[in-house]
Formats: sequence, C-alpha cells, structure tokens
Amino acid sequence: MTAFLYERIAEALEQSIRQGTLKEGDKLPSVRHSSKQRGVSPSTIFQAYYLLEAKGLIEARSKSGYYVTFAVTKSSRPTYQIEKQSHPTPKQLDSVSIIEEMEELRDSSTLIRLSSAYPAPDLLPTAKIQKAIIEATRMNKGQLLPYALPQGNKALRSIIGKQLLEWGDYYTPDEMIITTGCMEALNLCLRAVARPGDIIAMDQLTYFGIAQMVENLSLQVIAIPIHDENGLDIDFLEKAFQSFSVKVCLSVTNFSNPTGAVIPTGQKQRLVKLLHQYQIPLIEDDIYGDLYFDTTRPSTCKQFDEEGWVMYCSSFSKTLAPGFRVGYCLPGRFLSAVLQQKRIHSISTDSLAQLSLLHFLQKGRYSFFLRKLRTALHKQSLQYAQAIRMHFPKEVSFLMPQGGMVLWLSFPARFDGYQLFRAAKEQDIGISPGQVFAVEGSYKNYIRLSFSHPYDEKVETGLKQLGQLAKKLLH
Amino acid sequence: MTAFLYERIAEALEQSIRQGTLKEGDKLPSVRHSSKQRGVSPSTIFQAYYLLEAKGLIEARSKSGYYVTFAVTKSSRPTYQIEKQSHPTPKQLDSVSIIEEMEELRDSSTLIRLSSAYPAPDLLPTAKIQKAIIEATRMNKGQLLPYALPQGNKALRSIIGKQLLEWGDYYTPDEMIITTGCMEALNLCLRAVARPGDIIAMDQLTYFGIAQMVENLSLQVIAIPIHDENGLDIDFLEKAFQSFSVKVCLSVTNFSNPTGAVIPTGQKQRLVKLLHQYQIPLIEDDIYGDLYFDTTRPSTCKQFDEEGWVMYCSSFSKTLAPGFRVGYCLPGRFLSAVLQQKRIHSISTDSLAQLSLLHFLQKGRYSFFLRKLRTALHKQSLQYAQAIRMHFPKEVSFLMPQGGMVLWLSFPARFDGYQLFRAAKEQDIGISPGQVFAVEGSYKNYIRLSFSHPYDEKVETGLKQLGQLAKKLLH
Repeated sequence: MTAFLYERIAEALEQSIRQGTLKEGDKLPSVRHSSKQRGVSPSTIFQAYYLLEAKGLIEARSKSGYYVTFAVTKSSRPTYQIEKQSHPTPKQLDSVSIIEEMEELRDSSTLIRLSSAYPAPDLLPTAKIQKAIIEATRMNKGQLLPYALPQGNKALRSIIGKQLLEWGDYYTPDEMIITTGCMEALNLCLRAVARPGDIIAMDQLTYFGIAQMVENLSLQVIAIPIHDENGLDIDFLEKAFQSFSVKVCLSVTNFSNPTGAVIPTGQKQRLVKLLHQYQIPLIEDDIYGDLYFDTTRPSTCKQFDEEGWVMYCSSFSKTLAPGFRVGYCLPGRFLSAVLQQKRIHSISTDSLAQLSLLHFLQKGRYSFFLRKLRTALHKQSLQYAQAIRMHFPKEVSFLMPQGGMVLWLSFPARFDGYQLFRAAKEQDIGISPGQVFAVEGSYKNYIRLSFSHPYDEKVETGLKQLGQLAKKLLH
Repeated sequence: MTAFLYERIAEALEQSIRQGTLKEGDKLPSVRHSSKQRGVSPSTIFQAYYLLEAKGLIEARSKSGYYVTFAVTKSSRPTYQIEKQSHPTPKQLDSVSIIEEMEELRDSSTLIRLSSAYPAPDLLPTAKIQKAIIEATRMNKGQLLPYALPQGNKALRSIIGKQLLEWGDYYTPDEMIITTGCMEALNLCLRAVARPGDIIAMDQLTYFGIAQMVENLSLQVIAIPIHDENGLDIDFLEKAFQSFSVKVCLSVTNFSNPTGAVIPTGQKQRLVKLLHQYQIPLIEDDIYGDLYFDTTRPSTCKQFDEEGWVMYCSSFSKTLAPGFRVGYCLPGRFLSAVLQQKRIHSISTDSLAQLSLLHFLQKGRYSFFLRKLRTALHKQSLQYAQAIRMHFPKEVSFLMPQGGMVLWLSFPARFDGYQLFRAAKEQDIGISPGQVFAVEGSYKNYIRLSFSHPYDEKVETGLKQLGQLAKKLLH
C-alpha cells in the first residue's frame, strides 16, 4: 500500500524524534513555514501533525505551535546476549512448569496485565462487530446452523484473499483454508507434513504454545539462532539442512513474539530460495504482520514463494476478535493434506463466527479499523517505553518494536526474570519471564512486557512498581 | 427422567405396533373405553394417542376413532455376518480412498442426501437460535470479542452439567471442558492419554473420521468385535487387556454410527469394572445419546464411573447447531492433561457460539426442542424403514434403530456396497458404503442410510431408485 504524502512526512518527523534529533520540548516548524519549505499544502502538514499528535509524540500548545512531548533517549540499543549453538543438534523439548503458574493468573480481574499478547477489549470495535453479528444472523437463516464447508465459507476466503494484496498476490478462495484460529492453522500444517520423530527447525525464541505443540507431536527440534537484533541465522539453517533430514521449518517472520523482531526482506528471500533448493516446507506464522507502525507492511516469505513450499498462517485473533477463533492458512502445495487434517480435527470452523466476520469485512470496515488499532498500539509502545526508561534500572535495554504489542527487555546476566515474575505476581502484576520462550538457551535474564492495554494510571502504577521490584532484585 | 403416564401408555402401544400385534388398519380402543379399562383420565389417553399420531404411527379418522397407519413387518430381524477375530492383534489402519470420493458429493445442491448423519436444517430450531444469538450479542458486550477461558464459558459448563442429570449425576463446571465440537473432544482426550505407537482398543465399526484420527496419531489398533446385535464383546476386550498393554479404549456407546447399536447397561457396567481393574481410560463418545426414541434415555459408562477412568465426550452438533462447533467432555482424572491439550490445539472455543448456546439453553428451550426432534426422527425412521421394505430386495435386513439417525443395511455376502454407492452417485443419490466404517473385517455387503431428512417425495423417489439399483446389482 502506498503511503499518503502526509504519512510520509509524519514518518520522517517520527524518525527524527525516535533518533533524538528532535528532543522533548523542541518546537516543530510552523505549518506555514513547513508547507512553504516542503512545497506542499498547509493541510498536508496539518494532517501529518495530527497523526503525530494522535500517536502522542507531539502536542499543540495554545497560540504557540506544536512541541515534541516524547523523550526517547538513545540508550535503547539492545545488548542481546545471543546464545548461539555452533552446530545444529536436534533435541526434544521439555514442558515448562512456569507456564502453568502463568495460567493461574488468567482469571484474576484485578491483575495489571502486562503479560497478554492480544489487544485489550477497549481497542476492539465491539459495537461494529455486534452490529455485524446481528445483521449476519438475520440475513443467513439457511447457513447459520448447518456445518460450514471444511475448507471454510467461500465468500470469507475470497475477501481475505483479496486483502492479502497488501503484501503480495491476490489469493483465490481455493488456495485458502479457514481454521479455528492461527493455532489450529499451525497445528494442521505441522501434522500435514511431519510425523512423530521428524526434525523441525524453528525460531530459538518463540511463543510457548507453539513450543508445546511441537513437543506434543514428539518432534526433534533444531533451534535456529537469532542472527542479529533482527532476523535468523540463515547460514546456520543451511548447515542444518545439509547435516540433517529436516522435515519442516516454523518461524514467526514479522514482529516475533517475544522479541518483536522482523526478518529483513533479503533474509526472507534467501530463506525461500533455500526451501526450494532443499524441498523443505516452511510454516510461516504472520499473526502480527498487520500490526506495523511504519507506513508500509513488512514483507512475508509467502510473497516470494513461487513453488508452494511456504505454508502461510494468520488469523483475526490479534486484530479483531480473539474469541471468535477464526484463522486461515495458504498451505501451497500441501493444501489437500492440510484439508484432510482439518476434517479429522474439527470438521469445520464455526459457521456463525465466519458469517459475522464476513459481514464485517464486506462493509469495508477492516482497513479503517486496523489503521486506528496500529496508531493506538504505536502510541502505547512509546508510552510504555518511556515509563520503562523512567522507572526501570538503567541497565535494562530493549529494541523499540516496529509493530506488534510486546517489548523484550534484557537485564544483566545475573538477573532472574522468573524471580521478578514471582514478585510481580504478589503485587497483582502479570509479566512473562524470558525462559518460557526459549527453545534453546536459557534467556533467564529477559522478560516480555505487553503494551496491548491503553496506557492509564493503573498501567503507570504497575510499571513503576515493577521497576522498583527489578531494582531491588538487581542491587 | 421418569416418563409421564401418557408416555408409558404410548410406549406400550408402540411396541404392539412394532411387534405386529397391532397391524396397519387396526382400530385402537376408544378413548372412553381405554380410560375406563386402564383407570386413567380420558385426557391421559388422548395425550398418548396424540403422541403416537405425531410419530406417524396412528391417525384419527373423522367420527370413527384412531387407526394404525404403519405396517412394520416382522422381517426386520437382522442377519449380521459378524466377522470375529479370535485373538486380539494390534495393527495400523489404512486410509480409505472411498472417503475422498464421498467428500466430492458434499457440495452438490441437487443430491438426495441419504448419507449425512446430522439433522437436516428443517429439523433445527433456526428462528429460536437466531433470536438467542441476537439477544446474547446485545447482552454480552464485554465477553464477545476477548478469548473465552480455555476450559470454556463457566455458565455454559454449569447448565450443561445440570442437564446431564437426565442420565446420571450432576456435574460441576470444574469437571467439564468445552471443546470445538465432539471431534475436538475426542482428539484432545486421545492425545492426553496416548502417544504414537500406543495401543488403542476401539469399536470394530465406527465413524471413519474417528478411524482417521486414530491412524493420524500413529496408534496401533485392536478392533473390539460386535458381540451380538447390540453391544461389544467384553470377553474379547478382557483378553486384549491381559495380552497387550492397551493404553486407551474408544467406543460410541449409544446409537453407534454406523450400526445404531446401544451397548446394554449390564455390559456398560462390566466394561467400567474392567477399566478400573486394569486402570485403562475409556473415551466414551455419546454424541447420539440424546436422540432416543423410547421414553427413557439410554445409560452411559460415565454414570457407573466412580474412579474417573471414563472420558465422556458429546456435543450439540447432532441436536442443535452442527455449524457452531460446540462440544464438551468430562475427562475424569485426566482433566488437567486434556485442558493442556486444549490450550495448544485451539486455545479456547469460539466465545460467540458459546454465549449464543448459553442463552438458548437458559431459556429452557432445549428439552422441549429435543422432544420434538426425537419424535420427528422416530417418525422418519419408521417411514424410511417402510419404504426400504417396499422397494429394496427382499434379502436386505436391518435392525430397527431405537435412536440416532442411521440405518445399517445388510445384503447377501456377494453384494458390493461400493458398487451401489457408485451407481447411486450417478443418479445423484448419496449413500455410505459399509467398508468405510470397518476398522476390522470388510463389511462390503453393508450400506449405511441416514434418515435425517424429513420423508418427502424426493426421498421416496431416491429410496425407490436405490432399491431398483440394489436389485439390479444383486440379480
């Protein structure tokens, strides 16, 4: 999607703020001046300033102009202690009991949730979806109660296929399967290509539900190391392809959970080439891909996949309706095998949720809403980051995420994220200790914080308390 | 549930009709006479007659009284060629390519569907559920879009737990997990207790989706032979328990698909005793259990299970809303293992479908509707059976089902059900050849017909054509 002129101007200013060229308290050039200088209409400048204001980066002061309100210091450079394997070695995963402890927090109504990687209810278009459900229910008498097709509602597949134009090709309904959330999509794809004992190469750091799923299927795991701040170690992966009969790869390619990392486009292209060369499928989990803060959407491996080795998976769970459990996949050459898995796992996906989402999407409300959601999340990321810099020990470092809804905080090596988790739990604050995401390595000096809840007093208090706890544990 | 007096009277009369004591054209005793003779009020007799009339067994003739309208001949005794193994031998299942051929029929709009084991849309309370969806959507702003609990909506679990009183105990919400249909319930239970390579003992004849699921998990299968017309060979099962380390059993205990058989209560009790003795879990699929034609519901293994070895599974897919994909299980002592599987398979079940069903159930409409559905299915079973006796080769035999929605037709040994399937497909009629249900043995001289569609001219024509095709193939 091409960005509007005002968006490009806002983006440039934002980068200046993020890099510290424009500092807190700095006055922005006046609209008239800026319009003349850039050779654009004053209203374009106004729109750019409005956008930055909406993101909480600048504010208008009465009769004076626009001022930068965010102090993003330069200390945000991360100091990942990347734990690298020198040789690929398959192994079986162990369940982590900490996850059970984390689950206990789920029901608490008083908890300050810094642990949930899905949008807070306030960010979702509840009223609009309520309306869509009611209209879809009234209009679809005959389709409501019978089983939906195993492959999913055809009109829904068609409209999703068209939306994917944003990053790649148009996909036909026949290439897509609707699933019960992204989790089922990953499950079905995995089971379609791998049998117990097979070797999987997957992200070194990943959502623990994915790791458990892999463990449950009795697969042997090769952890692909993180290459740099962003991206995977593709050389290591190639070594693995050469040394072992790797059956399948699995990666969250954009705004990874927990790291927020995006695999650079060049690496994605190289990865797809390798897949083709070795004839190994990749399950690409792009569930956060639509939540980018820049003006353009990040690329996907799927868009470079001309031979159908990429099994693309995503859903509406992180953007629209987590509870509906509607996801989708583009399994490429493995379509019929995945469809067969769908039949024996859940027969079909809920007809009512599919019809309701279809109705919402048909009204063209999705892209408008996504834009709003991205702006809100971006603003929250900056607000949370600022609070962390203010209240946390100065040794903490992290990359500013360019999308998604999590921050991956690195502490000095002696720090134990699990201790902080326990201490925070006592004070009714939920966080995720780093080790639960580690497929390889310990990452015990990391924690994941979610910025999915609007920044309010409760969150501010929580972050303050958390910072104090971290200082106490560290010193 | 205790039957009402009028129900017991209707039941007795129905048995007389079914056994041929009362024949087509026979006049029933007058209401006055009958009321005096039985010492009950005339209105009780009227209610009994109304019930029989609703089932299509008798009709009122103006100024003359009630007459039997159904000719159920005595030739309905089946001649199952039970294929028995003498020794339990584990084996791996092979996929059946016929199932793919059957799937091709799914999308046809002109097909006469004698192949689908779920209620026709006409039998479902669409308008009432539409209303429930709309009300639930309006009333549950806050709960619609977020993830539901992995264990499922608590109020829904509570109301289902109370309904199970009909056959057993009251179950608390804590003992239950809501699943994405019964199929997911079976999957989760199976994966919670068995690993690839483990041995499962399961019904010799079963729904092919279940067989594929078992195959997909790379389990070794011991097929439990059918003992008699009804029930399993428990002696054989005990032999299997003694000889092999059987990890889990799986059985559809009531109105089995495809046979319609019900395991007698005594056998159920013996089975549960064996499970306790050998400490082996049973996955009990009771998805058709609510669709009984008698006045009382059949028993379950779960009701005799005092030590938590029975993992009970069911859903609303055969009774209310197939498309909603809402099922449930009572996993006994394996609750936390099944819940763990739920988290990594689909996280939670669709919130919208759960809230809508909850709202429908809260209005107390379910038992009223179920009664109507049972009456309709019972009537259809008799209508279909009569048409089969009229139009099919005289060598065909079958048991009259006492519930569910399928007829299991046995032909002479030289007959090939797959040939009939192919010929019927040519004439746009869908049936299920017997061999796709066979875990052990060929059963190629059987077919399964569904009576889930209201008996109309189209169905009548279809059954007539099918009978002619069968005659041609047989002679």
